[in-house]
Amino acid sequence: MDEKFIVGVDIGGTWIRVAICTPDLIDKNIKIKITETLKENKYSISNSVVKLLSALLSENDIKNEQIIGIGLAMAGPIDIIKGEGFNNPNLGFRIIPLKGPIEEKFPGIPIYLINDCNAAVLGVQYFEADDDEKENLVYITVSTGVGGGAICNGHLLLGKEGNAVEIGHGIVEPKSTIQCNCGAYGCWEVYSSGTGVKLRTLNALNDGELNADILLGIVNGNKSKITAKEVFQAAREGDILSKKIVDECIFYCKVGIGLINNYYDVSTIYFGGAMIKDEMQIIPPLIEQFEKDPIKFTINHPPKIKITKYRDEIGVRGALTLVKYKSENNPILEGTSF
Amino acid sequence: MDEKFIVGVDIGGTWIRVAICTPDLIDKNIKIKITETLKENKYSISNSVVKLLSALLSENDIKNEQIIGIGLAMAGPIDIIKGEGFNNPNLGFRIIPLKGPIEEKFPGIPIYLINDCNAAVLGVQYFEADDDEKENLVYITVSTGVGGGAICNGHLLLGKEGNAVEIGHGIVEPKSTIQCNCGAYGCWEVYSSGTGVKLRTLNALNDGELNADILLGIVNGNKSKITAKEVFQAAREGDILSKKIVDECIFYCKVGIGLINNYYDVSTIYFGGAMIKDEMQIIPPLIEQFEKDPIKFTINHPPKIKITKYRDEIGVRGALTLVKYKSENNPILEGTSF
Repeated sequence: MDEKFIVGVDIGGTWIRVAICTPDLIDKNIKIKITETLKENKYSISNSVVKLLSALLSENDIKNEQIIGIGLAMAGPIDIIKGEGFNNPNLGFRIIPLKGPIEEKFPGIPIYLINDCNAAVLGVQYFEADDDEKENLVYITVSTGVGGGAICNGHLLLGKEGNAVEIGHGIVEPKSTIQCNCGAYGCWEVYSSGTGVKLRTLNALNDGELNADILLGIVNGNKSKITAKEVFQAAREGDILSKKIVDECIFYCKVGIGLINNYYDVSTIYFGGAMIKDEMQIIPPLIEQFEKDPIKFTINHPPKIKITKYRDEIGVRGALTLVKYKSENNPILEGTSF
Repeated sequence: MDEKFIVGVDIGGTWIRVAICTPDLIDKNIKIKITETLKENKYSISNSVVKLLSALLSENDIKNEQIIGIGLAMAGPIDIIKGEGFNNPNLGFRIIPLKGPIEEKFPGIPIYLINDCNAAVLGVQYFEADDDEKENLVYITVSTGVGGGAICNGHLLLGKEGNAVEIGHGIVEPKSTIQCNCGAYGCWEVYSSGTGVKLRTLNALNDGELNADILLGIVNGNKSKITAKEVFQAAREGDILSKKIVDECIFYCKVGIGLINNYYDVSTIYFGGAMIKDEMQIIPPLIEQFEKDPIKFTINHPPKIKITKYRDEIGVRGALTLVKYKSENNPILEGTSF
């Protein structure tokens, strides 16, 4: 009999990753292909997934019949029953069809749609979490947006449509005048994501109230070159405006962690995402806050705070884990209808 | 063989309720006794519970051996493993021993400690929720404090120590100068609970910036008589200061509901608690907001909003349900260690 394979897909605001692996999920058997996320029309994403997956299969001489299932992780919100995305703040389009167009090209193979961070927390639990963390675990990505996944009492939280743990769009500053891509004002994402840091920096430069000479020096006076990376660098070098933006980014991470711990009573929070690559700037003050003075942000006993060692691959690893669990009827996913 | 009975206990900031019932949980078989919550020392609560339960048993001629189990619901935070409360913002005392002292008087009977609102959501699910609400359901009490319980994908959320859904102490106004009894600033409880409404009203009277003639008329100039009830009445009658306080109470309920829906992706939220007794003032604007314009507060599809018909009894009914479920090994409680 032919060997079986699992497919995992991670659709992010900037990159799409497709992976295949044997069901044992052994590291050396994970093969990944990656492409930039096209946003030309609402089918661009499903087209890219089909293309990458077809290439991976033919390169490795794998036939469709050998695939156990496809795990499809995408930034939320999603509708796991309909198999599509909706109201997406970073990808655009009111509706993004996913399951349908992929099923057309890979008929008969079960496809499981899941929020990308819900997938990632499965990956964290399977590949790296300590035993005493596995039951009550949260993953947070701080990247283009802010997203999360949670395992509570050993169960993955999905909610009525798969959008439990849309923590990035929880309002952390209700009287904020800064609008998020989602339409609301004062979401956590506005303060702590890459998009949010950039937006707030440009707003503050327009206001012209704070000195930003160091930041402007880094980009040679060209404001269009400013991303979160330059803002963090400028803050390290003492730029006043950038320091304020970075301080707020960190402050609202504390508010967000406090909310998460009050809402899920969690043992450990793992962080990932592009913004966390600069490990020394965001994470240490968070660890210090929740070790030394947690009560300012959470009434429950505080969580440990860690960084995932799998970096940008944790989402696609989680998508693989999802298919493994579904094929094994693992009860971590019990109670869901997808 | 003697008939069996279930015991439920609900320990609130103001009242303690103890109930007995047959395991079928039929309404006419539920017998409840109630007493005011004494806070003389850290054993006052367990003493009251033992006294009420002993009275109930002897009045109904029930022996200890007939009791299947005792469900002990208390406002959080609690430690379900140690069987005690800690850091309690409304009852006081750093540690409140519960399971230990009650076990001493009722040896050999299993005791299950649970957050009072976690119990209440079990009660809502069992006694009144529609079928399409049962899987993803939240209960919120707006009373002395603000608390919650959640069922997500058919599982009761407990977290590492039983304090998932400590929503009342989630920070909804991070730059607030108003301190909550928990020690933090700007918790939802500070804005929308009875305690919070009273505190903020007294603060605003001290500031003296807004007219409060109607409110002061209602209490004959005696500020010590002001409770949330008088503030809501004065707001209805056009009192300027009271109207501001009530508007904030409602606004932060919207923020809280938005957070809950983003965190749990929920079908329906049931409200209960003393503050909800005046149904016409808080609930209608919440229903209107989430029916007409939910995106301002939540990116996920909005929940329905309802009021529990069991009022103040929903907590003790939930405690009874908990014992029924534990005795039946009901998987709604799977993954917990209490």
